[in-house]
Amino acid sequence: MKLSPLAPKATPDMPAIEGARFATAAAGIRYHGRADVLLVILDPATAVAGVFTKSKCPSAPVEWCRAKLKRRKARALVVNSGNANAFTGKTGRAACQLTADLAANAVCCRPDEVFLASTGVIGEPLDARAFDGVMANLAANAKGTGWLDAAKAIMTTDTFPKIATATTRIGKTGVTINGMAKGAGMIAPNMATMLSFVFTDAPIAAPVLQALLKQAVVDTFNAVTIDGDTSTSDTLLAFATGAAAARGAPRIARANDPRLKHFRSAFETVLADLAEQVARDGEGARKLVEIKVEGAVSKASARRIAMSIANSPLVKTAIAGEDANWGRVVMAVGKAGEPADRDRLSIWFGGIRVAHKGMRDPAYDEAKVSGRMKEAKISLKVSLGLGRGRDRVLTCDLTKDYVAINGDYRS
Amino acid sequence: MKLSPLAPKATPDMPAIEGARFATAAAGIRYHGRADVLLVILDPATAVAGVFTKSKCPSAPVEWCRAKLKRRKARALVVNSGNANAFTGKTGRAACQLTADLAANAVCCRPDEVFLASTGVIGEPLDARAFDGVMANLAANAKGTGWLDAAKAIMTTDTFPKIATATTRIGKTGVTINGMAKGAGMIAPNMATMLSFVFTDAPIAAPVLQALLKQAVVDTFNAVTIDGDTSTSDTLLAFATGAAAARGAPRIARANDPRLKHFRSAFETVLADLAEQVARDGEGARKLVEIKVEGAVSKASARRIAMSIANSPLVKTAIAGEDANWGRVVMAVGKAGEPADRDRLSIWFGGIRVAHKGMRDPAYDEAKVSGRMKEAKISLKVSLGLGRGRDRVLTCDLTKDYVAINGDYRS
Repeated sequence: MKLSPLAPKATPDMPAIEGARFATAAAGIRYHGRADVLLVILDPATAVAGVFTKSKCPSAPVEWCRAKLKRRKARALVVNSGNANAFTGKTGRAACQLTADLAANAVCCRPDEVFLASTGVIGEPLDARAFDGVMANLAANAKGTGWLDAAKAIMTTDTFPKIATATTRIGKTGVTINGMAKGAGMIAPNMATMLSFVFTDAPIAAPVLQALLKQAVVDTFNAVTIDGDTSTSDTLLAFATGAAAARGAPRIARANDPRLKHFRSAFETVLADLAEQVARDGEGARKLVEIKVEGAVSKASARRIAMSIANSPLVKTAIAGEDANWGRVVMAVGKAGEPADRDRLSIWFGGIRVAHKGMRDPAYDEAKVSGRMKEAKISLKVSLGLGRGRDRVLTCDLTKDYVAINGDYRS
Repeated sequence: MKLSPLAPKATPDMPAIEGARFATAAAGIRYHGRADVLLVILDPATAVAGVFTKSKCPSAPVEWCRAKLKRRKARALVVNSGNANAFTGKTGRAACQLTADLAANAVCCRPDEVFLASTGVIGEPLDARAFDGVMANLAANAKGTGWLDAAKAIMTTDTFPKIATATTRIGKTGVTINGMAKGAGMIAPNMATMLSFVFTDAPIAAPVLQALLKQAVVDTFNAVTIDGDTSTSDTLLAFATGAAAARGAPRIARANDPRLKHFRSAFETVLADLAEQVARDGEGARKLVEIKVEGAVSKASARRIAMSIANSPLVKTAIAGEDANWGRVVMAVGKAGEPADRDRLSIWFGGIRVAHKGMRDPAYDEAKVSGRMKEAKISLKVSLGLGRGRDRVLTCDLTKDYVAINGDYRS
């Protein structure tokens, strides 16, 4: 798979997260000659939070995690690529149990302290016995470095590993937030699009972490769409090892604790970074597209209109063709079903107003706009002129390569 | 544009509809060397009914027709291709008025008895003065034959003209129903997808025709989707000249008149034929895809699930790749937001059950299913096992040609 032209130019240096160690291995689930399983070992005090796909047909690991979240404690995370363990019935549940048993045995914890995620083909049984041969080694070799390798092990059609980091403080104590994600296709906002795992050494209680996560996904992962298709497996887990408490960080037990201010912001920044990387690695993508809607009757209405534009095949193919086809944007606004008044509508491509109050802008200059459309990042703004609701989503263009990748993915 | 491989092998012989005459001309709106305007002249007694896009940003002709429908009478129809006269503000309304004035003058009727439809590029002003030079000739040359030419004049990215006909009876008198349509892209069900015009000599009062039309679109035009994008211009108009009354056909003034039985059925057959042709001419399509959902909690729920499958880029690209990727069907069922129980779900491709009760079918034979996927018509069935709701929609695959056509449409 060729590297996305939208891949970040630099890879961040990832500090260790005290209390979290990991290792990868090649279990041969589907791919050959590459790591396809990641084990993360977490210190005993680790709190966990999670958000998941809203699909009515979730994968077995999603159901597993949802059930185990109630205990609020995590000691291990096992992620595999190549097989999503979705739509696998009883064998899927058994595969989860076996994987958790193997990890629990290697890590010396209870199986229900093991969290699981799988990504890859849907509907084919996952033979979890493949993990048996590698688990002991994974546990023995786990260390606090090698985030890039970890992010690579969970890739499917991704063309680059996605990692992000931030340092911030809780009270007066410095803490770190590291995250990784995989995405590429079957990405649509319905909570926790794709797989992503975020780790911090901050001592944050599980309910607080859950509240932070729920709030932070709204304008990050949930504001990204590649193709409008919601995966059966979307999982975003956050782990707080609490190791920074030994360095004096206060334990945070309430979501409205003012000492969370900087952490909340840094946490959202990491999620936003990962979510943008997912959009930058949309299957076949050559353009990163930022869609801003303002003047809607509410933020929710602005979101629905932005998503209608972002998921329109006609808008996405026009952008692939470097065509500032604002007529299709009008179409996508119109089909969203949200309050809109054609004669108040204005549209900008790349900061240039192309349509104003329901008509082509009098100053419209096709050559000037066409120049902007050749850039790798396209910004598209719609003003509805109705209210104060605004929102922003990220997507990518729809190219022939998307069709090629997805017309020949399984075989 | 290369002829769709799904084009019907034969073109029906279209009898004349007494009371309707038409002619086409090349007004040079956008295309060169082809007819791009159609005038239909209707006898004074003609009743009219219409259904339109649900877009909040409808084209000027859609607004024009909606307003004029209240009079229930039509004397002329003018349709142009090349420019949709959508998002054209005041100039769009003026273009409608000028077109109607020109036609009214040529046909000797009132401008508000003239119905209008435009299809093509959105957002560029339509210079209706182009019709001035051709209107008198159109009126002078109008005749009852040449349906294929009429259907050709309204094409945009269509690769073949779409016409259909049926004969039936009202009481004991034979009547005819003829229709034409254009479609290809920006097709999604939200009433009266694409442009379509249906004509009959049956003496049916306008309110009855409206009721018939509203009912008939549900499982025909509204059950077809190409790309989930709803046009600003979707228009379906039905005209009943009433000429058959002179041959003894009873005048129908009530929608529940039992003498409508055969007519209702024939009318829906014509609409279904045209709607299927639209799916067969989906931009870049190589496969006609029929999606049946059964066992849903209601017909409306089955429709939403069927549409979620039909509009999924991942399902559509898999079918383009001749891959019976039922995992993506599971995904599309799951994201529809409708009641579904993964462990009761069964899926068939081409009549072969590939998944049963939430798992791959024990008898799954990839080679056998792959053979079916090579056929030009793919039937996909989902059984939810929850209730008695069922529905059927038509769509097509998503190919690289769709991207090519739409990435380079305007320029």
